[in-house]
Amino acid sequence: MGERSLLNQLIEALRCLPGVGPKSARRIAFHLLERDREGGARLARVMAEAMVAIRRCSRCRTLTEHEVCALCANPNRDGSLLCIVEQPSEVVAIEQATDYRGRYFVLGGRLSPLDGIGPDELGLDVLEARLRDESIAEVILAISPTVEGGATAQFIADRAARHGVRVTRIAHGVPLGGELEYVDGGTLALAFSGRHAL
Amino acid sequence: MGERSLLNQLIEALRCLPGVGPKSARRIAFHLLERDREGGARLARVMAEAMVAIRRCSRCRTLTEHEVCALCANPNRDGSLLCIVEQPSEVVAIEQATDYRGRYFVLGGRLSPLDGIGPDELGLDVLEARLRDESIAEVILAISPTVEGGATAQFIADRAARHGVRVTRIAHGVPLGGELEYVDGGTLALAFSGRHAL
Repeated sequence: MGERSLLNQLIEALRCLPGVGPKSARRIAFHLLERDREGGARLARVMAEAMVAIRRCSRCRTLTEHEVCALCANPNRDGSLLCIVEQPSEVVAIEQATDYRGRYFVLGGRLSPLDGIGPDELGLDVLEARLRDESIAEVILAISPTVEGGATAQFIADRAARHGVRVTRIAHGVPLGGELEYVDGGTLALAFSGRHAL
Repeated sequence: MGERSLLNQLIEALRCLPGVGPKSARRIAFHLLERDREGGARLARVMAEAMVAIRRCSRCRTLTEHEVCALCANPNRDGSLLCIVEQPSEVVAIEQATDYRGRYFVLGGRLSPLDGIGPDELGLDVLEARLRDESIAEVILAISPTVEGGATAQFIADRAARHGVRVTRIAHGVPLGGELEYVDGGTLALAFSGRHAL
């Protein structure tokens, strides 16, 4: 097996997958070559297209191959609710787990001036235009309760307030079935500070 | 996200990878789209080519994109030693871990008449021709010590004996650093029956 054999190139290329080291890459390569060439060929085809064609939705900034994503284009979604998340994957998670039927806006990160991530990088100008032009009644912040997430949430809350839009934040605390002794300290502290009357 | 969006197609196609379920597929898709499009595009390109071009070496039956693999084509390998393994991945493992400099033969499985795997399916006719035509002094069996593996080893040993070729088998037993109480029973039994004088 010369260093530049096609097999070694495949093993090397597979390492771009998250969490895949040299041994896993080898295992995946042999699995595809010996047991699922059809699946591998299909994956290669779809992946090649996806890497080129998928971009950000011009309205909500999630990932889509269209100018406007299917969720934004869907006339049955409730346009008065706008849920703000950090990542496109969170849109998918919320869609699968909840009965939320409003719309989304994907930041793509959190405000982090030291890393050069300001309001423009998060598309907050696009968000501002939507707050101004659309009849949004409530902005639901589903942003992680970190320092940067908190600053980002505050920034968006201020903008929303200017447009007279109500701002809420999803609850953070001990997860369902989470045993207190195994929950991390930050979450537990958050759960205490966020306690409410029964 | 309509069911047939390119993103969902990518997530679905990623599930052909071994051990990748719906959540991992999603994580991989977003990772590639958001952080490593170049790696994803390269992987798609190499994978498309590999699925079509990689086939079995006509001499040793390992996977290669050439008629004869690099190991078989290398004139510096010792042609008097022939190591017989079940899978192409085992050739890679032996090459990386040992200083073996002989040649290989890849069966692609074990004799299993009930599953329709006979001598022809394992290329034993090709092996027989090599035993006859090449000056092989020793056949090293690196076949798993299962019932089917044992039958396969015995079959090959008989053929090799006919051609006056010496047959050895790699040692099986407790692995280096393996603690006896955690080693599986089969391995421990094998280690006992295979004990030798110090």
